[in-house]
Amino acid sequence: MNFNAEYQQIKELFEAELYKKIDGLLGVEPTLHSAMKYSVQAGGKRFRPVLMLLTAKALGVDFSSIMPYAIAIEFIHTYSLIHDDLPAMDNDDYRRGKLTNHKVYGEAMAILAGDALLNLAYETILRANKSICDINAGRILALYAGSSGMISGQALDILNENNNSATEEELKNIHYNKTGKLIMASVIIPSCFADNSYFDELKNYGENLGLLFQITDDLLDVTANFNDLGKTLNKDENSNKLTFVTLYGLEGAKTKAKTVFENAVAYASLVDNGEILIELANMVYTRKN
Amino acid sequence: MNFNAEYQQIKELFEAELYKKIDGLLGVEPTLHSAMKYSVQAGGKRFRPVLMLLTAKALGVDFSSIMPYAIAIEFIHTYSLIHDDLPAMDNDDYRRGKLTNHKVYGEAMAILAGDALLNLAYETILRANKSICDINAGRILALYAGSSGMISGQALDILNENNNSATEEELKNIHYNKTGKLIMASVIIPSCFADNSYFDELKNYGENLGLLFQITDDLLDVTANFNDLGKTLNKDENSNKLTFVTLYGLEGAKTKAKTVFENAVAYASLVDNGEILIELANMVYTRKN
Repeated sequence: MNFNAEYQQIKELFEAELYKKIDGLLGVEPTLHSAMKYSVQAGGKRFRPVLMLLTAKALGVDFSSIMPYAIAIEFIHTYSLIHDDLPAMDNDDYRRGKLTNHKVYGEAMAILAGDALLNLAYETILRANKSICDINAGRILALYAGSSGMISGQALDILNENNNSATEEELKNIHYNKTGKLIMASVIIPSCFADNSYFDELKNYGENLGLLFQITDDLLDVTANFNDLGKTLNKDENSNKLTFVTLYGLEGAKTKAKTVFENAVAYASLVDNGEILIELANMVYTRKN
Repeated sequence: MNFNAEYQQIKELFEAELYKKIDGLLGVEPTLHSAMKYSVQAGGKRFRPVLMLLTAKALGVDFSSIMPYAIAIEFIHTYSLIHDDLPAMDNDDYRRGKLTNHKVYGEAMAILAGDALLNLAYETILRANKSICDINAGRILALYAGSSGMISGQALDILNENNNSATEEELKNIHYNKTGKLIMASVIIPSCFADNSYFDELKNYGENLGLLFQITDDLLDVTANFNDLGKTLNKDENSNKLTFVTLYGLEGAKTKAKTVFENAVAYASLVDNGEILIELANMVYTRKN
């Protein structure tokens, strides 16, 4: 099977479990439930959970152990998008070609839907069987998603919004946390279930993959069109946002992406059966949306 | 020792642990950390954690097993207040006599500080030792705080904001979830650590105590003054909010409070060493703020 077909197969397998979880919730106020489902079912690449499942496959870890974490990380990613899109944050009207959560349900319900998905992420992993692997994996998820991880990245992003003199180090630090931490968690959580094999190699791979993801995101913001991306374009430039393109220029950012891609490939090469992780890095490097 | 002194002693013990946790966080972006600390250190009665610790004492459960849950429930309560106070929600400027989080740090940072505290609640319990008791307690916390618990109550509250024809059943259902669920969780989590002793009695006690807490809250909104309460008064009436006072009138609400207090006392009487829970219900029934 070629890589794209395998990605698609795992994505569909994952989405079936994801929808079973969100549809099967009981006792949820109907509008809240609808708002939660709206964003969870809005599509997207399911990049983090598929990455987690592909890494599990490379390490020989059962999907059944990993699935609660794959679902949890997608809930966490989704809640962070709902809150990021709010008027007080990035003020976005579209996401993945659809109206953002608060444009459909109102700001108050969007805040609650985000809160509910974050809570549901932890409810999902707390329901998993508790082996020593689960304990470590749960702690890693909380640490990487929380105030010393992704949320610090979001805070830095907001605080640097109109800072045109930010350095490369500062920009990297924002995205190391904001985008990188969840992507790193996606590759090291499977390692928790495989006696921590290749923990450091995977962590380094994840760090470079996260950076690659962000640089290509910034590049697409200036080179893609609305139909490809499903969201408003040149948004970064219009909002005075610091990006890898504003920092390095278009060509400079492309060169940076190449280096980071090569680093990711180098780390994935150290992992037995890591070819699939190389193909994934290549997919990110060459993505059009 | 009299009840008030005991409450105070446990509150101080708890706050020392709470502050140790929040102050000791590493790697958090400084403004975000400051916003998180601002609301956690804003005082308040620490009603839920003290209730949890008093229940643990009555059941003979070690404080060391319960403390992570007491800290987690206070983080959850605090995040819910930060988000509730936002302009898109209740739009409150004051809380406990101090400016609300978004008035000091801005809306974006307040949203993130709330998200971070919710995440930190789960990080705290995921770091606890994992006995079978911890597994059950963690699941209960997630269930009662989440989309089928407190957050559904908040959603119902918003959706009924201008509904002047809501029934007693509807109002009770809002507060059964919005206020009641965390208070119920506070008394049944200790039971998880004591072979589920008095689980049902404590759950019923918690349900009535939560209702009492909300009715007295509604009564204080019309009878207290700003200095007692530390927040804007007649806020409920001004915002057309449905309350037990608008539903039953002042005297009717007082009668309702008496009935609910007596129910709470009756359930606490079924619990060995439950006198302290009766005193706590009495404290809520007679509170001035």
